[in-house]
Amino acid sequence: MTTFSLQCPSPLHYAQIVLAHGGGGRLMQQLLDSTIYPIFDNHALNQKHDSAVLPIGGQTLAFTTDSYVVNPLFFPGGDIGKLAVCGTLNDLAMSGAKPLYLSCGLILEEGLPLDELKRVLASMQEVALAAGVAIVTGDTKVVDRGRGDKIYINTTGIGTVEKATAISPARICAGDSILISSDIARHGMAIMLAREGLAFESQIESDCADVSGLVQHLLREKIDIHCLRDLTRGGLASGLLELASASQHAFMIEETAIPLHDNVSSACDILGFDPLYVANEGCFALFVPKAQTDKTLALLHAHPLGKQAQQIGEVSHTSASSGTVTLQTSLGIARALTLLSGEQLPRIC
Amino acid sequence: MTTFSLQCPSPLHYAQIVLAHGGGGRLMQQLLDSTIYPIFDNHALNQKHDSAVLPIGGQTLAFTTDSYVVNPLFFPGGDIGKLAVCGTLNDLAMSGAKPLYLSCGLILEEGLPLDELKRVLASMQEVALAAGVAIVTGDTKVVDRGRGDKIYINTTGIGTVEKATAISPARICAGDSILISSDIARHGMAIMLAREGLAFESQIESDCADVSGLVQHLLREKIDIHCLRDLTRGGLASGLLELASASQHAFMIEETAIPLHDNVSSACDILGFDPLYVANEGCFALFVPKAQTDKTLALLHAHPLGKQAQQIGEVSHTSASSGTVTLQTSLGIARALTLLSGEQLPRIC
Repeated sequence: MTTFSLQCPSPLHYAQIVLAHGGGGRLMQQLLDSTIYPIFDNHALNQKHDSAVLPIGGQTLAFTTDSYVVNPLFFPGGDIGKLAVCGTLNDLAMSGAKPLYLSCGLILEEGLPLDELKRVLASMQEVALAAGVAIVTGDTKVVDRGRGDKIYINTTGIGTVEKATAISPARICAGDSILISSDIARHGMAIMLAREGLAFESQIESDCADVSGLVQHLLREKIDIHCLRDLTRGGLASGLLELASASQHAFMIEETAIPLHDNVSSACDILGFDPLYVANEGCFALFVPKAQTDKTLALLHAHPLGKQAQQIGEVSHTSASSGTVTLQTSLGIARALTLLSGEQLPRIC
Repeated sequence: MTTFSLQCPSPLHYAQIVLAHGGGGRLMQQLLDSTIYPIFDNHALNQKHDSAVLPIGGQTLAFTTDSYVVNPLFFPGGDIGKLAVCGTLNDLAMSGAKPLYLSCGLILEEGLPLDELKRVLASMQEVALAAGVAIVTGDTKVVDRGRGDKIYINTTGIGTVEKATAISPARICAGDSILISSDIARHGMAIMLAREGLAFESQIESDCADVSGLVQHLLREKIDIHCLRDLTRGGLASGLLELASASQHAFMIEETAIPLHDNVSSACDILGFDPLYVANEGCFALFVPKAQTDKTLALLHAHPLGKQAQQIGEVSHTSASSGTVTLQTSLGIARALTLLSGEQLPRIC
């Protein structure tokens, strides 16, 4: 089998921050590995998981933070407030945690219409109430005009991890089935179209959703989930590449098995985006024991957020090529996926 | 006794966000009361304390968030990184919590020199290590040039509250002594002078410091602290006014008892700032039973961050004028303090 890689052989080094440093790709990884991890060096951070999992007293807590700078604030399927709450609930869920409490840090730009702020906050509260979590502490800063972009939101979340066994990249095993909870690339394309004012025949809505209830349901039904990853910045390809690298396994996936709506596929084609790298906000990858594949799919299909779930591949039994993700394309060619330098579209979340 | 108030009789209403909405004064209170609290309405948030105090399992956790947008990033006595870690540790300390873990959410502006980022992160880690806490989870976003200002940082913290009795505005009693841990107004004036490039004969350094160790020390020494408040945005006057309102008590304070360095006082005079309203970042007010006043002062004086601690007043025994703070000035005049519309100087933290 021949695989092709078009990755630049010498990594780029910058003395200044560029947009791609926030894009979930190679440059972001480089910033983390060369600057952030070495300086903050500690065991919990070094797990490189969506949430830190921490012992406090007799409890195990998950703790995660995200800032949201999406542009525009309002888009089909959501807004920055819904995104901020869903995103942080989902990061907690990816550690198998039951979300309990959120904080909300606002950075507002002078001149922001108060009505827009109210719509965003109401949207946050709506998602929080539906998830049974409370936004219990907050902070508001205002910056001068031209030093922000209407609203930036930080949401930090706490949840409790009740499952005895951890959900983490370290638990990925050879032979595990790789599942995906939903169709891909809707969030990124919805933002792209909203930003550029483009209209297609059928509107593309962001998949932005809180999946924590779905994950809790799988755990209650005794699915022995080995690992989870929400497929946000950098999309499916970047998420899988990070896990392949962290677990030191090789993943084989089938392009034809990956759910992708026709209108999203067309929009990607026309605008020159690779849907494998386009951000999602309600879609995640699951690694489960092969024997539990059918049960997991059945549970996913019975849930509103998992109706389009599919098995898309498996963890290779060979120890060669560890850290790689190989896509069997619809043309039967094996394509080695690589991290892009950054997100194809900045400020997606 | 006659008191004078120059407060505008009809509160101002804005349809847009203005800088004063982030200034810790009356407009910020109005934004919180009219918009944020009603939308996020829940018991923990409604306590309006520096941290939310939450039951999780058998534990009591404190949880607090702050975003930092200070301009300039580097100033005498600190930088945005030191400020971000100290500020959040201090908010935890104000609930009597022992800080354990921090998150770090970065919003970087395209073009930020990587060296400046490294200095700021190293500064965060230095304070965290000294406090025995770990920065365990993070997030990095990059915004386009002109949509941020180099670095904005959100730090959210978790701590455990071990003291059986809560430290909160509700515990303030008639007759309590009001103490202050240090001299006032240094942080705000240091920022002001750094921003304007002004030089005085003696440099003014920010008081930016982590006071959580000092508070833990007082608790271990059995000081029955009723309430604490760090005197950040809006300074001493705004902090006391918020507590007077929350506790429905009247506070009497003596201007001559308030520690204020001569050079800070001169800078305030020359530039037209009232030091009572200028921000601090390592100074807090304490409410303790009258009988423990001397012991508390002795403990404070023995600690490097409490050498200039003073009793500045007491909680009135009369129930009339609840919610007010009356300052006995050096001229013997009683001045009723009122909330300013906003911070005299924006982007102080």
